Amino acid sequence: MERAQALEIVKPHLTEHRYIHTIGVMETAIQLAEQEGIDQKKAELASVFHDYAKFRPKEEMRQLIKEQNLGMDFLHYGDELLHAPCGAYWVKHEVGIDDVEVLSAIRYHTTGKPGMTTLEKVVFLADYIEPGRHFPGVEEVREAAAKDMNYACIMSLRNTMTFLMKKDHLVYPDTLAAYNHLVTEWKK
Amino acid sequence: MERAQALEIVKPHLTEHRYIHTIGVMETAIQLAEQEGIDQKKAELASVFHDYAKFRPKEEMRQLIKEQNLGMDFLHYGDELLHAPCGAYWVKHEVGIDDVEVLSAIRYHTTGKPGMTTLEKVVFLADYIEPGRHFPGVEEVREAAAKDMNYACIMSLRNTMTFLMKKDHLVYPDTLAAYNHLVTEWKK
Repeated sequence: MERAQALEIVKPHLTEHRYIHTIGVMETAIQLAEQEGIDQKKAELASVFHDYAKFRPKEEMRQLIKEQNLGMDFLHYGDELLHAPCGAYWVKHEVGIDDVEVLSAIRYHTTGKPGMTTLEKVVFLADYIEPGRHFPGVEEVREAAAKDMNYACIMSLRNTMTFLMKKDHLVYPDTLAAYNHLVTEWKK
Repeated sequence: MERAQALEIVKPHLTEHRYIHTIGVMETAIQLAEQEGIDQKKAELASVFHDYAKFRPKEEMRQLIKEQNLGMDFLHYGDELLHAPCGAYWVKHEVGIDDVEVLSAIRYHTTGKPGMTTLEKVVFLADYIEPGRHFPGVEEVREAAAKDMNYACIMSLRNTMTFLMKKDHLVYPDTLAAYNHLVTEWKK
């Protein structure tokens, strides 16, 4: 699918602010994909659609996760997690994208998971560091991403967990597992 | 077992510094046990022996965990975790303490675990806030402990995980599970 067509499909599903964010994620993901030597078209497609389900009603998403068995534990760690697995499902069934690597990058872009593919890391990280993101520590992660994408992922997972815990929020267990897995690999 | 006898048994297994720490944990644990209305003698016994295995050779502890099947995952998240399950084992088999609640409080004093008993929380928290501890944030946890022991446990679990991640260390999955469990209960 061409970029223009993909953007045209996703646009009505997003607010203007979220559409601008999506463009930022797309551009960052393409750049990271080039840096890491992976398929830039897949990075483009996954990032354009990563927030496809962001504004669907929460109850509809909970229902879908239950009915389609998209991972029951996504239900118990905060509503912010729902749009990632639901997005992957709807991008497949409504948009017709069936590239499993692309769908998996959408599915895990919020939580991460242990043993991420390079494409999954690219979309996860691009979502965290795209130019529209402004929060303490993001510049350090951007700098790390240019040198060592794996360490940048470690930083963004750590920052995310620390941020959630500071607010007394739950932390999805596979986000810690993603962190532990990357740290173990990185120390080798 | 009387306090004097327990201290006499544990003393040769500790450095002077660690013995003083143990006294601090014991006094804090007794105070917390009183506050929470649980058996103070059990809190005393568990805290006196919580670091019983602290200075055993790491290799001996790894071997024990494998041979006695004390939880293989204790082996993969940093050597600091080994002394807790090994301590519980040796306190049972060398000292002859067979109170399962006391042994469990020793076993989980470093990592925590989801669904901790009050005694387990008391020893875990006392180890974190005893008067000899001096690090950023400890005073806030002490203040919380006097009002809401569960929230103080949440704080100490969070601080521990944040500290470990800042140093690029691995985090034991059940420490996060302990945090998530306590946050879920606390929000009810």
